[in-house]
Order: sequence, then C-alpha cells, then structure tokens
Amino acid sequence: MHTEIERKFLVTGDFSADVYASKRIVQGYICSQPGKTVRVRIQDQNGFLTIKGPSDEKGMSRYEFEQTIPLDDAEQLLRLCEPGAIDKVRHLAKVGNHVWEIDVFHGANEGLIMAEIELEAEDEPFVMPAWAGKEVTGDRRYYNSMLTQHPFTEWNQ
Amino acid sequence: MHTEIERKFLVTGDFSADVYASKRIVQGYICSQPGKTVRVRIQDQNGFLTIKGPSDEKGMSRYEFEQTIPLDDAEQLLRLCEPGAIDKVRHLAKVGNHVWEIDVFHGANEGLIMAEIELEAEDEPFVMPAWAGKEVTGDRRYYNSMLTQHPFTEWNQ
Repeated sequence: MHTEIERKFLVTGDFSADVYASKRIVQGYICSQPGKTVRVRIQDQNGFLTIKGPSDEKGMSRYEFEQTIPLDDAEQLLRLCEPGAIDKVRHLAKVGNHVWEIDVFHGANEGLIMAEIELEAEDEPFVMPAWAGKEVTGDRRYYNSMLTQHPFTEWNQ
Repeated sequence: MHTEIERKFLVTGDFSADVYASKRIVQGYICSQPGKTVRVRIQDQNGFLTIKGPSDEKGMSRYEFEQTIPLDDAEQLLRLCEPGAIDKVRHLAKVGNHVWEIDVFHGANEGLIMAEIELEAEDEPFVMPAWAGKEVTGDRRYYNSMLTQHPFTEWNQ
C-alpha cells in the first residue's frame, strides 16, 4: 500500500529517441466509482490487481494497493470487467533523473498519447521533455477508468 | 480461482455441541453489484481480498477469486468500503462428512444466524443437521453484500 504522486501530460512530439523499453497492456475495471477503482491488468503475460482510493483535491496523490495475480486469474477477472477494456502500449523513457511512462492507446482510444511521471513529493522538480504538451493531471476525463466508459475517439461526436 | 458451490440455511436450533472452532470476521465491500462483489475481510488478524462473479440461475454456484493480503492493507482497504461493515463470529461444525460454517451476526445484523455448506457438486448428498431451518440459498437478501446495504434489524421496519 502506498500513496501515488503523479503528474500527467498529453504527448505532442516525438518521444521515440528517449524510449528504452516497451510493453503491451490490456486492462479493465471490475468497478470504477469516483472514490475507488478495482483494476485488472495483463502486462507481458503477468497479471495484476490494483485498487485505488480517492484522489486529493489537486488530483496528484492517490492511495493505491497493488498485487500480482496468476495470469489465468487475471484472464477470468477481465471477464467480470465493465465493457471497454483499455488496450495500450506503454513505453518507458528516461528524461533527466526520472522515468516517464508514455501510453499510446489503441482501440476506442486510438489517437490518445499520454505521459506520466511518478514523484516522491508533490513539489519535486523534474525536467520537462520537449515532447510533453498540456498537463492533464487531475482531469478525470483522462483517467483510464473514464476512458473505458467515454473513449477518446467519441469525445468529439 | 474456483467455482463455489454452496447451500445456505437459517439456523433455528442449538448448534453448540457440533462446534470445534470459532473466529471473528469483519468484512466490507469495496463494490457490490448484482454480477460481482469485491470484498475485504479481516479474520484472526489475517487479511483477505475476494472477488466473486455472478451466481448461476439457482444461486448455488458462484465463481470466486481469493487472495491473502497483508493485515495493514486490509485495514486501509476497509476504509474504502461501502458503509455497514459486517461483523460476525463464524463457528465451524462437523456434521456427517461435511464442515458447516455457522455465522452469528452482530451489529446491524444482530439476531441473524446462517449456516453454509460447501459442496463438490450440486447434487452431492449431505446430512441435514437438526439445528438447520429454512433454506435461503440464492435469496439475495441474505448475501453478506446485501446485508451491508439492508441489515437484518431493519427488515421489519
């Protein structure tokens, strides 16, 4: 159990030169409510169960519990999830002293690319990469749980 | 991951002579919807996270995933739960070749006593104890997740 402090940005430039690893992620939500989400994820043939609590007012800190689970359990639990599983490729990029997670979405969220940085403290300084655009930290529309219900390709319809 | 096959009865007689073990259980639901529940339980200073899928038509079989979790995580996750935690003492009783779980409820469900037997197959024969009354298998009012929302002491109000 720990508190997650993170900031999230849209990606507007070419980040490929900073990437050192990539993996595909498929995830769904057994439940997602404003104050809590229960997420099932399959990443590189590994299963994960993650429960997140409410965000603070700024949307930066969020209480999180995560445990690995067997792959076959993760596959079974994905069937219990709300429709609209998230399918994305996560790239890891090193910028300054931090690792960024850059998620390139597919399926119903095709076209959306977001980058997240996890911080030790809310005021920790970091190098802003040239490929990072507008900050969307705390904007609920960009929560993966919301993208399940209201996918990016439907936003302008 | 396994499928749970169980039958549930109200308890109307004195079962104490059959009891060989007892433990207190406190549990809550991070979410509970007709087709799925995510439960956090503390039992004898051990934490458990359990996800149950939909019941079959008869209400006897139900898909279940359970994993132990650290006690401090269980305590944190209980805070995310819907109001109305279940507080009960579970007695284990041997009758014939089966172990029965007899739950004596406290708090908002004071007065309710239910016994459950887990079976290997839906048609498996078992000895019905003298203290067991009406069968309530599949009656959603008696689901622990429902007792959180509509506790027993409020049924006749």
